[in-house]
Amino acid sequence: MLALLETVSARLAQKKLMLVSAESCTGGMIGAVMTDRPGSSAVYAGGFITYSNDLKTRLLDVPEPMLAQYGAVSAAVAQAMAQGALSKTGADIAISVTGIAGPDGGSADKPVGLVYIGYGLKNGPISVSKHNFTGDRGAVRRQTVEAGLRHILDVLEKLPG
Amino acid sequence: MLALLETVSARLAQKKLMLVSAESCTGGMIGAVMTDRPGSSAVYAGGFITYSNDLKTRLLDVPEPMLAQYGAVSAAVAQAMAQGALSKTGADIAISVTGIAGPDGGSADKPVGLVYIGYGLKNGPISVSKHNFTGDRGAVRRQTVEAGLRHILDVLEKLPG
Repeated sequence: MLALLETVSARLAQKKLMLVSAESCTGGMIGAVMTDRPGSSAVYAGGFITYSNDLKTRLLDVPEPMLAQYGAVSAAVAQAMAQGALSKTGADIAISVTGIAGPDGGSADKPVGLVYIGYGLKNGPISVSKHNFTGDRGAVRRQTVEAGLRHILDVLEKLPG
Repeated sequence: MLALLETVSARLAQKKLMLVSAESCTGGMIGAVMTDRPGSSAVYAGGFITYSNDLKTRLLDVPEPMLAQYGAVSAAVAQAMAQGALSKTGADIAISVTGIAGPDGGSADKPVGLVYIGYGLKNGPISVSKHNFTGDRGAVRRQTVEAGLRHILDVLEKLPG
């Protein structure tokens, strides 16, 4: 994780891009990891921990009908969270996560370990990836953080220059 | 830390109060800790990671002149961050932290390890405590999280009933 974090931070610095995070099931872990190293203020603006549905709507403008129709753990909500994080902060690149870390809250349709990660650049399309992680709550959360960083890196690697 | 976290979570649940966090130097660690255990959605609404000054103003309405006059690491800003977190979310109790985790960014007036923690209830006064932690970046951040949880517990222990 540490090597990945340092690569992501170096690429963001090189491209002069500021990251914003919008986290549900990871509850701030992406922000905590991003700020683990000195100098992170050059590449990480901050973020939102929208653990409740109410805060997803209040802070990130995720529409209530969307939450009602698709549920908080859905591709649509992950996308709306990333979009909201960008529009509320003016940051350059966003990462969002919403998922079921467990051990409770799973269902046949949406089992424990299901996580949607949204990521993309300001004014660009927001991509969403669906994951089915295994392991306990801590394992699901850690895998989510790592997958999120990898997606950010993917976006950065595809940029020209 | 785990025992403290479980005590804070149990007291919040018993009082039916929802916590919101506004973090600068801890970058999401309080949120990450609060959501480490299952069932945290009953007591933790979410929070703000306002790592940059710009986000302190944009997301929490910390006045720009206050940041200019006192600096981001100040009692005034800690108080404004907690107040902003309460007013933007409708949560019941807030914790805010702003400090210098190091190893850079310290000065004679504001050395590495200086941290202000704001805490208080909705519609109540916001208290601010000043800390001078020692150790490396990780140690300062961990001590800040623990001190923050202790301050929340202090507020909860003083409530009637």
